[in-house]
Amino acid sequence: VKEVKIREIGEFGLIDKLTGRLGPGDDSVVVGIGDDAAVTAYAPGAQIVTTTDMLVEGVHFRTDTIDDRSLGYKSLAVSISDIAAMGGVPRHAVISLAIPVEMDVERLEDLYAGVADICAEYGTTVVGGDITKTSGPFVISVTLLGEIEAGRALLRSGAQPGDLLFVTGTVGGSAAGLDYLEHGQTYMEASEVVESAPDLLQFHQRPRPQVAAGRLLLESSACTSLNDVSDGLASECNEIAKMSGVRLELDASKLPLHTSVRRYATLRGVDPVQWALFGGEDYQLVGTMKRTDAERTEALFAKNGLALTVIGTVAAVEEQSVGVTLLYNGQAHELKPKGYNHFG
Amino acid sequence: VKEVKIREIGEFGLIDKLTGRLGPGDDSVVVGIGDDAAVTAYAPGAQIVTTTDMLVEGVHFRTDTIDDRSLGYKSLAVSISDIAAMGGVPRHAVISLAIPVEMDVERLEDLYAGVADICAEYGTTVVGGDITKTSGPFVISVTLLGEIEAGRALLRSGAQPGDLLFVTGTVGGSAAGLDYLEHGQTYMEASEVVESAPDLLQFHQRPRPQVAAGRLLLESSACTSLNDVSDGLASECNEIAKMSGVRLELDASKLPLHTSVRRYATLRGVDPVQWALFGGEDYQLVGTMKRTDAERTEALFAKNGLALTVIGTVAAVEEQSVGVTLLYNGQAHELKPKGYNHFG
Repeated sequence: VKEVKIREIGEFGLIDKLTGRLGPGDDSVVVGIGDDAAVTAYAPGAQIVTTTDMLVEGVHFRTDTIDDRSLGYKSLAVSISDIAAMGGVPRHAVISLAIPVEMDVERLEDLYAGVADICAEYGTTVVGGDITKTSGPFVISVTLLGEIEAGRALLRSGAQPGDLLFVTGTVGGSAAGLDYLEHGQTYMEASEVVESAPDLLQFHQRPRPQVAAGRLLLESSACTSLNDVSDGLASECNEIAKMSGVRLELDASKLPLHTSVRRYATLRGVDPVQWALFGGEDYQLVGTMKRTDAERTEALFAKNGLALTVIGTVAAVEEQSVGVTLLYNGQAHELKPKGYNHFG
Repeated sequence: VKEVKIREIGEFGLIDKLTGRLGPGDDSVVVGIGDDAAVTAYAPGAQIVTTTDMLVEGVHFRTDTIDDRSLGYKSLAVSISDIAAMGGVPRHAVISLAIPVEMDVERLEDLYAGVADICAEYGTTVVGGDITKTSGPFVISVTLLGEIEAGRALLRSGAQPGDLLFVTGTVGGSAAGLDYLEHGQTYMEASEVVESAPDLLQFHQRPRPQVAAGRLLLESSACTSLNDVSDGLASECNEIAKMSGVRLELDASKLPLHTSVRRYATLRGVDPVQWALFGGEDYQLVGTMKRTDAERTEALFAKNGLALTVIGTVAAVEEQSVGVTLLYNGQAHELKPKGYNHFG
């Protein structure tokens, strides 16, 4: 494989190579890549949902646990998930890269192939970006614009006593996948690993943001608060509790765990609940809904081929103190955020 | 001065400290900092103008030529200028930082004071961001959303043979300021430097993006192409020439140079035209307009206290070949872009 150093093709040559991998987008792209700024159009009366994430090699990803194409996919997945967690539709992205000077162009082309993959999957278009060199690690900065019906954004702050706590899909899979990438080779011969590996890799390397689930929750008006699982359920539930001023009770026995995750956890001799609570990067949605809406919401999800599981409650008013109670093996514990502190 | 290391206050403590410096914004901010994403509202029928810039310490800025507060100001100025170059109004920004772990919190607070300065000046609100640590240099990534009347964005691609080439304000000041910061101490005693220094520092450290000029050009429908001067006039004029498929003729003798720039250039024994053509970072607007619109546009600018100078023409059709001719000391030269190539 011929490796081309970036300095040989220059900044503009690199931009051409990378943007050549991307689609032109739909009619909403009035001015795309190439002018001072992009111009985009939205539905009449829509509001804009904006999120931004910065990923640094060695902090957020390592080349030994994710390939470049999956990294491109996941870099946008992180932001798409934030839009999903507001109930919005992801539309237009800008991507900036700080590139170590000796990096191979081919790595960046693979990254953009992954970006193109997820953009095609979610109807999102890259409309701009910036590239620069750096003497430090590779940095990827993504900003994503979504659209949402005016005044309808789903916030973290609306949970009410008596509501039910739910999560979409399954959780703990990304942490299980990372564990497999770090320790899995020891068990390569085990049939549990042979069967589970593709799922575990997908959960960690190509997590699928829950845009459709977010839209169902917005359209059905069933949701009183919503967050996405980027830092683990412990951290995300505490965010909802804090922003809503309530106490959540999370029943560990109800957590939806994928068969492959359970199987691999058994082999590893660990409790997969730990992965679900503290692992993060599952990019599912966790939120609350009125108890009276539960049945029809579960039916709505089932009808749309999506999973939604009730995993707890918002405590009654008389028990209120802000935080999260974890019910685990019949005991009640205070569930601390243990969110990932980049500077800790 | 007490210096507080970031690891002592943690990621969330830092976010609180920095966002505490920022204003809440106006009614257009439906959901600001603190949820999964920001939600913002725009005028009915508006389109969104989006630009993003990534600044790396040691590549785009050095601590010995810019203070942190000015760096915060300039980081947003770069993006505001891109919105101005489309004729748009800057509205909402997200800022991400990759922070070396041993950096002082106070430096970041100063940076955000500069961000608050320029936001107040341009009616722009910071609605989100991301922070992370890095083992490499300090990285600042800004994405800015502006709004613009549907279908009215001013592009680089509309210059027509016979049009006039213009630039707003004065050019070459930022490069002169950088030269002063690098070499000025030699001349500290000279009255030319004493008098010029404040202007030179302002041009380099706190450039003022030309939003009002961009709006006048859009509203008057006088403009056939527009670009901002981030990489120097040589590079920007070549962009217009390439995107419009025309040849520009730029008359060096007509370049608007600030008195302080001329004075300092004389002292340094250099031709300030070089700064204007190849220095960049002036964040003025360069563009073309129909010859028949020149008089009323100049009058409109004068009435609004803004400067607009005709510096050349778009060549007649029979002389067309894409590029830029520089008229300099009575001679015609091919003006190459010499744009800054980060990887060169």
